[in-house]
Formats: sequence, structure tokens, C-alpha cells
Amino acid sequence: MPGNSFGELFSITTFGESHGAAIGVIIDGCPPGLALSEKDIQPDLDRRKPGQSKITTQRKEEDAIHILSGVFNGKTTGTPIMLMAYNKDANPKDYEKLKDLYRPSHADYTYDLKYGIRDWRGSGRASARETLARVAAGAIAKKYLKEKCGVEFLSHVVQIGTIRADIDMQKVTSKAIDASLVRCPDKSASDKMLKLIEEVRKEGDSVGGIIRGLVRNVPPGLGEPVFDKLPADLGKAMLSINAVKGFDFGSGFGGSIMRGSDHNDEFILSSLRGSAKQSYPKGSKNITTKTNNSGGTLGGISTGEDIYFRVAFKPVASIALQQNTVTRSGKATKISVEGRHDPCVLPRAVPIVDAMAALVLMDHYLRNKAQNG
Amino acid sequence: MPGNSFGELFSITTFGESHGAAIGVIIDGCPPGLALSEKDIQPDLDRRKPGQSKITTQRKEEDAIHILSGVFNGKTTGTPIMLMAYNKDANPKDYEKLKDLYRPSHADYTYDLKYGIRDWRGSGRASARETLARVAAGAIAKKYLKEKCGVEFLSHVVQIGTIRADIDMQKVTSKAIDASLVRCPDKSASDKMLKLIEEVRKEGDSVGGIIRGLVRNVPPGLGEPVFDKLPADLGKAMLSINAVKGFDFGSGFGGSIMRGSDHNDEFILSSLRGSAKQSYPKGSKNITTKTNNSGGTLGGISTGEDIYFRVAFKPVASIALQQNTVTRSGKATKISVEGRHDPCVLPRAVPIVDAMAALVLMDHYLRNKAQNG
Amino acid sequence: MPGNSFGELFSITTFGESHGAAIGVIIDGCPPGLALSEKDIQPDLDRRKPGQSKITTQRKEEDAIHILSGVFNGKTTGTPIMLMAYNKDANPKDYEKLKDLYRPSHADYTYDLKYGIRDWRGSGRASARETLARVAAGAIAKKYLKEKCGVEFLSHVVQIGTIRADIDMQKVTSKAIDASLVRCPDKSASDKMLKLIEEVRKEGDSVGGIIRGLVRNVPPGLGEPVFDKLPADLGKAMLSINAVKGFDFGSGFGGSIMRGSDHNDEFILSSLRGSAKQSYPKGSKNITTKTNNSGGTLGGISTGEDIYFRVAFKPVASIALQQNTVTRSGKATKISVEGRHDPCVLPRAVPIVDAMAALVLMDHYLRNKAQNG
Amino acid sequence: MPGNSFGELFSITTFGESHGAAIGVIIDGCPPGLALSEKDIQPDLDRRKPGQSKITTQRKEEDAIHILSGVFNGKTTGTPIMLMAYNKDANPKDYEKLKDLYRPSHADYTYDLKYGIRDWRGSGRASARETLARVAAGAIAKKYLKEKCGVEFLSHVVQIGTIRADIDMQKVTSKAIDASLVRCPDKSASDKMLKLIEEVRKEGDSVGGIIRGLVRNVPPGLGEPVFDKLPADLGKAMLSINAVKGFDFGSGFGGSIMRGSDHNDEFILSSLRGSAKQSYPKGSKNITTKTNNSGGTLGGISTGEDIYFRVAFKPVASIALQQNTVTRSGKATKISVEGRHDPCVLPRAVPIVDAMAALVLMDHYLRNKAQNG
Repeated sequence: MPGNSFGELFSITTFGESHGAAIGVIIDGCPPGLALSEKDIQPDLDRRKPGQSKITTQRKEEDAIHILSGVFNGKTTGTPIMLMAYNKDANPKDYEKLKDLYRPSHADYTYDLKYGIRDWRGSGRASARETLARVAAGAIAKKYLKEKCGVEFLSHVVQIGTIRADIDMQKVTSKAIDASLVRCPDKSASDKMLKLIEEVRKEGDSVGGIIRGLVRNVPPGLGEPVFDKLPADLGKAMLSINAVKGFDFGSGFGGSIMRGSDHNDEFILSSLRGSAKQSYPKGSKNITTKTNNSGGTLGGISTGEDIYFRVAFKPVASIALQQNTVTRSGKATKISVEGRHDPCVLPRAVPIVDAMAALVLMDHYLRNKAQNG
Repeated sequence: MPGNSFGELFSITTFGESHGAAIGVIIDGCPPGLALSEKDIQPDLDRRKPGQSKITTQRKEEDAIHILSGVFNGKTTGTPIMLMAYNKDANPKDYEKLKDLYRPSHADYTYDLKYGIRDWRGSGRASARETLARVAAGAIAKKYLKEKCGVEFLSHVVQIGTIRADIDMQKVTSKAIDASLVRCPDKSASDKMLKLIEEVRKEGDSVGGIIRGLVRNVPPGLGEPVFDKLPADLGKAMLSINAVKGFDFGSGFGGSIMRGSDHNDEFILSSLRGSAKQSYPKGSKNITTKTNNSGGTLGGISTGEDIYFRVAFKPVASIALQQNTVTRSGKATKISVEGRHDPCVLPRAVPIVDAMAALVLMDHYLRNKAQNG
Repeated sequence: MPGNSFGELFSITTFGESHGAAIGVIIDGCPPGLALSEKDIQPDLDRRKPGQSKITTQRKEEDAIHILSGVFNGKTTGTPIMLMAYNKDANPKDYEKLKDLYRPSHADYTYDLKYGIRDWRGSGRASARETLARVAAGAIAKKYLKEKCGVEFLSHVVQIGTIRADIDMQKVTSKAIDASLVRCPDKSASDKMLKLIEEVRKEGDSVGGIIRGLVRNVPPGLGEPVFDKLPADLGKAMLSINAVKGFDFGSGFGGSIMRGSDHNDEFILSSLRGSAKQSYPKGSKNITTKTNNSGGTLGGISTGEDIYFRVAFKPVASIALQQNTVTRSGKATKISVEGRHDPCVLPRAVPIVDAMAALVLMDHYLRNKAQNG
Repeated sequence: MPGNSFGELFSITTFGESHGAAIGVIIDGCPPGLALSEKDIQPDLDRRKPGQSKITTQRKEEDAIHILSGVFNGKTTGTPIMLMAYNKDANPKDYEKLKDLYRPSHADYTYDLKYGIRDWRGSGRASARETLARVAAGAIAKKYLKEKCGVEFLSHVVQIGTIRADIDMQKVTSKAIDASLVRCPDKSASDKMLKLIEEVRKEGDSVGGIIRGLVRNVPPGLGEPVFDKLPADLGKAMLSINAVKGFDFGSGFGGSIMRGSDHNDEFILSSLRGSAKQSYPKGSKNITTKTNNSGGTLGGISTGEDIYFRVAFKPVASIALQQNTVTRSGKATKISVEGRHDPCVLPRAVPIVDAMAALVLMDHYLRNKAQNG
């Protein structure tokens, strides 16, 4: 497949440019019988939407999602589900002055290299607006997994610039995440982050940060050994999001300085920990681990413990501050990318991380079903 | 595909268990006409081989590779290339005492969860011995890319435990890497790392670290926007290697604390930098970037600048020190994994990182050929 | 992929139900730089459209196609192209009486078996209306191949019921095909076929037939040996069209009674035949074959000779005549499928056969580009 | 994938040339826990083996199959199964005189066109010897489906040259098929076919024919609507076999002359037919069809009725009779392909048809498992 599809069995294919007619996605492989309407999808899109608050881009997009196929009488039928949002606030003229310039650290240059042609209206296909389609598809995966196995997706911001939050992973709730404008469930850090973002905006600059992905109640046995290990697929999913520069899971980069004797997660009987671990069909004898440096997988396969990982975002490339660059025809010039850009993309990226995690888990959930024949 | 294949157009499928009859790989999609013999592959396997020096596992494996198809009169024919090495030093009895125990942080437990059955001889399919097949396939990709575009793969160790090397990426050479037993081209750090590994071995423990992947002379235009971004595929490739816990590229996690104004790579005319940049078919006007925080890609597509990334390895799970665990039937017990394990896997993992990077680039090289019709 | 995608490198994914909101397709992998507008696509849809003449279903569908992405300033950009037509004449109430009945030889029954739920409005996803999306995507492939290599797609009707046409394949023209309401370029047979279809309609019955696919100026070297042989992929493409029961190519079923000495296509120098054979990059020395029982491929790879094949259609299942059947709950009953059904689907299926052939050739054209690195 | 793989979830990848070191296959996706040894596979290979009787090629190949991975303690483990047979009777010198000639209706010419290089030893990769790998893989699929659902594969020869057998499909048994040297369970026709093949051999010629595929006890609900319809995948599978020129299922080409009122399969309650139809999980209310012109599928999905189809083989291209051809460098010459070729490939092709049918059904069996989540 040429690169706009993701997933083997719960497979999505996205389309659309930032300032084209529409952005959308076909989901192929959704099991039949799932109750589904636009109302199940819209809330996730609203979490991702520009213009939610003063700290996000002021582009006004309704981003109203439409289901155009695959649902009948309120239920999925097993046929492809097409979801689409029209681009209503498209205003390509804003971008005309950029069409012969290469914005620093943007994809303008590489699209030209690769294709010899590019849609310069608001980054075209390279715009983060494409993630709308991912969030819409992810909402279906989330709903399915929630209903079938109680899986919860609880990504949250843990760092913006140099401000780090202090969060007990065991206690994170969906409510606490959304109580914070920056989606960081540590009130004190959240306040500082908010302030930092405001400062950065005023400076015409941008700032990066880290989102922690967190998934609870993961069914054990998901993930394929060798190439399609669960963390490998999660990593690819996250690294395919615009502005992401890094991914680690469990102990991650921190684990690289540890000794095996500290890092290994000893197996214990779950009764010892008092956890009410879900019983697994093949009889797992209520085994659990004392620690979870592994981040919820061993050998690429889920253990049933929480999956957690970090996603590093660079500061967004669009800044109002003046920078040097060159024109398409190779002349040195100056550029200042004014407009409605987020000074910090992380708060809006939280639902994207959740969506991508849900797409990966849903795909492996179906692959696992197939596997045992 | 069920998980043992990697790549769309230069596609590999691996097979084999650690103590089964053989380990091997089919490469489907290698272009015809490439001169190829076992001699092109064996050196990379020797870099990965156990028992190379006192710091690696003492398992003796010849790991002699055989080409069983796809090559005729010394050249590839465009048909599948099958490469295989027999397992000569297999000694399953060593493992019999482990067959009913779950080694901490090993895949024993999850294989049982997923399949209800597992080959307990030396981790079976979950053994890192599987990477032999990747290195063999990667050697072909490396040779092809070297001959066609002069691409160089120069991964090296930059950290073991808390010892960090100080290396100028511009000056790394293949020779300097292999002059170090730990494959770290910083003599002073290399000596300390060696000493640390010896200590850790004596303690019956293990230690993790970081490999930096480095690729020079990358053809511009490789990588697909959206899901199959080049860094996303590189990330998946690395995260599919046993013991890897993290991946970042360019500025990576460090980039997350930066401002856009510092992070952005300004475009400049390459004449300004004095670089003899290869001219690109579509006329890139000799554009380059002043810095390379992007790590050689923009919007998921290679710019032609060096690609670099970091791969974090946890300490290997097999340690001689005693640990708590449970048996297959759910009883608490103690375990001590004696035997011929590496106290530090990184020196041998360097060729694996190179191989996986080569497989990703080769695949995208062919995809890019298709793309423009 | 779960079954609604076709093609590896020129990959299409279709969506939509007969009486849902819309029918459409995403084309992923179209090379950049192809001039494209709705006007390039609409004529093929009009050839497939219901209500074209008195012999087709009287359902009125504008079937106006819209390009929603992937085209900028009149050219393809290399990003996914989304094509969609709204369902304007949808009138689900017509079908309500059928929702608990299994129409004989329809997919109602198997959809229920497989999914436990089905969209009963006009066959839902199982409707031949889905082929609209294929024809739209195929129009792009046809245009590309025409411009790049002069490939021509000239499918035509050769049999309806027991009436067989007598057509010299060498002389078939696009104009002659469309001069006939049934798309059979043998005037005498065409008249008889027309009369037969009218009779069958009056009887409330339906009739089958055979379309011959014909492709001229095929680039040599297309098709993969072993599983993805060109005729295997053409066969799959044709057998995936509703109502198709058979496919053969070249000598086909007729070849099964021949001797090798009669069937083999002797190689000759093309100068002997006076043909102006296109010269092939690798230097084919102007070799051609005396006969073409092979149908334009050898070992699954195109020779450059004309590709021709036959596609057998059963009579459409929807007939006004009364039949026995059972209800969803398992009671015997009678059924008469009244409405706007074609008594013979072949004239409208001609552009579908062309489209599917074009999709297969386009995909292999791109795969062949990749192959040689 | 570049063309040497088949199947999405029960996925096989084959390798090997006719006179190379070995022929083999990796099966990825076989469920764990299936009892498996070489003894389960060898009998099917023996049915396909050359030199079985006086009517097949006299090439002596042991074709002894080896399982090199994926099986532990006599059971599949869910990891890739590698099967391989060494080429023992390889004698490339026999072919040296053919290396610069294009044998009529062979793939020599197109391999040269496509790759610019070819292994000329016994057709290299284009040899029907590659089907050994398919039969080996198919044996595993057959065993699995037999054990899980009692599926039976009963392909048999129905026509050789102009001799047609008269066989009641309901009564075909495995024993009756193998009682005939030509695998045609009509004694009278079988005798005539045998005689014909002997005559053709003496003449130095070859002859084609038709195999009917027959599958009993097919689980209902297999097959994906739209592109991956069950008959479409079966068609592709059959059309990928060397020498196959056509495929039809159910009424097939014969159905094209019928009226809908004759062709439609009326639904009836199975109690009316006295059949002990297996009960289907979703509650099919014991519905069956009065006739089976559909050939066991509706809308591309299996009904549970018998699947039957025809596969047309051309006469093999290798004949001792002299023919005209050209050399690689474009000079007219004569050729006579002497050696150990089958005058009729059909008897040995019967197990190949069964194997390919089993691979398709097995793949869809697993896809169906995934589908319902």
C-alpha cells in the first residue's frame, strides 16, 4: 500500500488536504453489530479541534463528522465505514505568499523533491489537519475495545518545554486530564505550562514537550512476535504523527542505564498484590509482575499489565519570528510564518495519541482472534 | 501478513527457532543483476556472531550462511533469495530445567498466554538469534544501496550504563567503529565501557545502553507521507529488535524542550556551506540546511542530509543473579539463568541496527521508484 | 486488508451502499503530475450508468462524480485521490418488503450468515452499484496508461444468451463498440441481442452472456511470476465483479482440447510479420510470435502482444417471475423481484471490465518500475 | 509483497529454482497446537511427484520434505513453519543447449524481457517444480480444515483432450479418484484418457484438459464481499498454476446462456431435502438451496453447499516435435525440447488444485475468525 493506510485487519485509509474540499477516512474491518453514530465520534474530534481555547490555533473549523457508509439502523454492518468532515474555514489565499518559499523544518521542500508538485495551501496533505481522520477512526476502535474488554485510553501531557509534571500513573483519570486546558493532570505543572505557552505565543515562538500514553485493561496476548511486536507498532503509529521525534515504552531511555537485576520484572502471584486481575481464557493462573518496567509487554506481546509509553514532540515549525530560508528557485530570503498556529501542539495532540494507540490495539485484537483459528 | 515479514517491496520473511534445525530468511523483491555470494553476507554475520570476544556470549556458532535460491552465475535473478544457517551448537538440554519456569522479563510467559504452547529451547522463536536472519538480509540491502547510491551505514555505541561517549558524527568511520571491541569510536569511553561490562559479567548481572544509528549519502525523496514516514518505519524496525525500549531521531527527546526558533533548520544554499551535495533529478537547486535537528527527514521524507537516530536497549533479561518468579502452574519459586549470555548486548546489536536501517531504506528506495510511474 | 481494497501500488479502497449516502473510492498511489478533472472520469461512468437506454434499468442516477482530494491546479499531486458520487435516486422504501426474504441467488442470505446484520436497501453493499467506484478509479488508470504507453482498453460483448457474435479482434475499435446499444461491434449479432433482451424483459426474466476483454499496446514485462501472474490478477479482478461466473484468457477453455504442437506460439522475427512493434528498453530484438494462443502473456508476464480474455456473466438474479424462497425466520414463501432491474447486465458491464483490467495493468506497471531498482 | 507470497493470514512465501539447491516455503500464520510431522505432508507430495507412473515425466525426485521450524514436540507452535525439499536429480547440463533459445510458449522470453537475466536450468523459477512448495503448504491447510470442520478436497480430472468423463459430483470419493492413474473417477473415460496420453507421448506431443475442483463441508460465511470474494480468490489461486488458461465455478461459462429463472437457486428448508446440514452459529434456520448453480457461494461468500469449479489446462509447452523459434540474439532457428516432460500434466496437477483450494479456504477461515471480533 502506498502509505495512506494503517492496520492489517482494522485498516484505515485517509485522504484529504488541509484546504481541499474535505478530510476523511475509510475504516475497513470494523466488526458488525457495534452501535455507532456521529455522537460517538464527535467528542474526540472536539478534543483535537483548533480554537478550543485561547492556547490553540484560532482557525475555526466545525469539524463536524459525517458517517457516509457502513452503518445501518444505528449499527455497523461489517462493510467499510466512511467518515468525512468538510473543510469550511479554508482560506487558501493566506498561503499564496508561501507557495514559492520553503518554510524551515516544514515538508514543503521534501514534497517538492519527491513529487515535483505540491498543494501549498496550508501544507496540503502534510498538514496536521490529516490527523482529524485518525481521531475519527480511533474513536470507533476505542468504543469497540471499551465495550468488549473495558480498555481505557488515558494519554496526558507530562512535559512542556522544561516543565515536568509529577503524576502517579495509577491514579490518572479521564476527568482529571480534561480538567486541565493543557491536558496535564498535575494542577501545579498544568498552570505553569499554560503560562509558558502564553509567553511563547507572545514571543511568536513555539515549544515542544512530551505526552505519556497510558492504556488500562489491555487484553493479554496482543502483538505478534518478531516484526509486528506491539511496541513496534505503537512506535510506528506515534512516529507517524506530525512533529513527533521520539517514542519509548516502559522504562524506555531510562532503562538503558539500568542493570538487569533492577530492571527485570519479577513474576508474582496476583493474589500477593491483591489485584483483581482479569482471568485469561488459557488459564494464566493469576500471574502478574511485581514491577512494570516492561511497560505492559514481553517479547512484543501484551501481558495484561498497563501499557505506557512516551511520545516526544518537537516545537511546531510554524513561527512568527523571522527566519532565513530559500525560495523554490534557490534564492536566499527571509520568512515569517504568521497566522493561526498553535504555539504548542501537545494539548490537541493528546486525543491523537489515544486514537493511534486504539487503532494499534484494535488491529492486534482482531489479529489475535484470527490466530488461534 | 502474520508478523514474520518486513517490507513492502524489498520484503523479508524470517523463520527458525534458537535451537531448531536452522534460522533463515526469504528476501522477495531484490532487483536482478546484483553480484552476490555468501562472501557479501558473512562479514556482517560475523560482526553479530556470539563468541567474537571475551565480552560476548560464549555460545559457539559458526553461523555460516548459505544461499539456496535466487542467485545464478553469481548474480541475483529477481526471484526470491533464500538464506539459511544451520544451528550447530544447539543444546536444548541446557534449557530443560527452564521449561516450566517463567524467566523474569522474558517472553516465556506471553508466548504461553498467546499460543498455549512454546518451544522452550533457548527462548525458541523469541531468541535474539532470529536477528541473524535480519542481518543476512540487511547485508544485501546494504550492498545494493552502496553500489547504487553510495549509502553508508555507520551505527555505533554511544552509551553503556551511565558511560556516555563523546563522538563527532561527521567524523565517524567504519574503521573507527570496529577498532573498538564495544563498537564505540571514542577510545576513552570505549575502554570504560569494556571495563564496566567485565564487572557486570562477574556480578552475574547485565547492563543496557544506547546505539546511535547513522546513515550517510541518503537519496532524497525516500519515505511516504502520513503513515509510512521514513522515521516511523525506522522506528518500527528498531523497536522490533529484542531488548529495545526506545527510539528517537534528530533532536529526539532532547528536541522536546526546545523552542521552534532554536529547533528549526534554516534552509541555505549549499554553496554557502561548501558541501558537494549530490544533484537531485528534479532540480533541488543545491539547497541544504544550516543545521540538522530534523535528523535527515522532513514530513517523513528524506532530505538528503544524514539520517541519525538513537536506539535504547534495556539490560538483557537473562542474569545469573537469583530472582523470584513463578512456575507455569502458578507456584512461587526462585530462578537463576546461568549459561552463556551476554552481559551487554549492544556491541553485537550494532550490525542489527545497521541491517534494519538498510532494510527500511531499501524498501523505500524501491517504493519511490514505483511512485513516479 | 479486509477485502475492500484492490492493488498493491495503485491501490483502491471502495465504500458505500446502494441506497446509503454515497458511493466512492480512495485511489492511493497515483503518480503525481497527471492532468485530471471530473471530465476525465464522467464519460466512463456514463457508459456504466443505469437508464442509458431502454435496455437498462430505469433507475435514474446522475452519478455525477466529485474529486475531493489529491488534485491541485488540475494535476494529481501523489496524494490520495478521493472520488465520490452521491446517491440521489435512493428510495429504500421500495425494498422494505424484501427485508425479511432471501432473494434466490442473491447475497442476502450469505450476508446474514456472515455478519448477522445487513443493509437490505437495494442489496446494500452487495449491489452492483459498488462498481461505480471501480469504473471511476479505472478511468484514472486508463488515462495514465494511455498517455504513458498508448494502452487501449477495448472490451466488448461477444455473446448474449445463445447469440454469438463474429468479431475480428484485430479490427475492433472503440467507436464500433459504442455504436451498438449492447456494445457488440457485430451489427447483425447486436441487433439479435437487442431483440432478445427486449423479449426477456417482457417475460420478466433475465439472460447472461460473455464479454471479451481486449487490451492493446501492453508494455512487455508486466506481471509477477508465481502467484501474481498477470492473468491470475486479471482473473481475480474479473471474478470479483457481481454476476461473473468464469474467466479464461488466450485459448482458454478451448485450449484444453488442443495438442501442444497446435497450441504453442512459435517465436518469429517481427519484421517477418511486418508489425511495427514498440522497442523495449532491454532490447527485445524485435521478437514476436506467429500466433497468440497465449493471450499476451507467458509465465504470467506480458509479452507485448494483445491481451485478450473472456468473462462469463450469469443472468442477473433479480427477476419479476415468481420464485420459491424462504423468509429470514425460515418459512417457505414466494417472491417476485419487481423493480428497475436490467434484464441483461452485459452492456453496462463492459466499462467495468475495462476498468478492472486497467487497474490490474496500472498496478503491475508500477510494480515493474519498482522491480528493477 | 513482490509476488512470491499468497494469503493474508495463512500466508505462504515460496522460493527455489528447478535445478537450484532446494525448493521450499515458509507458512506464516498456522494456528498453534496442530499435530504435524513430515508424514502429514509427504503423501500429497507423492501424488504430485514426477515418475509416479509411466504417464508422467521420468525425472526421479525423492521430493522428501523436511520441516525446519515452527513445530515442537510434534505440534505447531504458531511460529513460521519452513518446509523444504532438496533438488537431488538436478542435472543442469541437459539444459545448456537451451540457454540461448526461446522455447515456444515458455517463460524464457518474458523472464529475459523483465529481468534481463534468467536461470535457464530447467526453466529455473518458472518451472512447475515450484508447485511442490504449494502442495506442501496446502497439506497443512487441508489437515487443519479437516480436523476443525471436516472439509474435504476432492478435485479430479474431468476431461483430457476431447475425452470427457461423466461423473456424479455427489458420489466422488477420494478412493475412486486415486484408483485411476489419471485421477478421473470414471473408469471408462479414465481408460481412454490413459490411452490418449500414451499416444500423445509417442508422437512427441502434449495434450491439455480440465480438472474439476470440489470441496465438501465448507463452513458457511467464508469469503469477503467486493474484491476478495471467495471465487475471486479461488480463481486467482488456480490461474497462478503453470499452464492454466481458465477458471469457472458453479454454472460457469455454461451459465452464460441461461435465463435467470433457470439459473437461480431457490431457497428451501433443508428438512425438505433430507440433508443433515450442519448448524451454523448465527442460526441459519436450516436453510439450503434446491439447486447449486451458484457453486457454493453467493455474493462471494460461502453458503455451506459444495464448492465446485473447473480449471482448464493448456497442453504443456515442452514437446519433442520440432518447432520454429528464435535465439536470444534474434536469429531464426529450430527447436525440439527433448527430455523427461509429461505429455499431460493433469494427473499430477490434481493435488496442486486441491492444495491451492485449501490455502484459499484456510486463509478465509482465519479472516472470518478475525472479522467478528
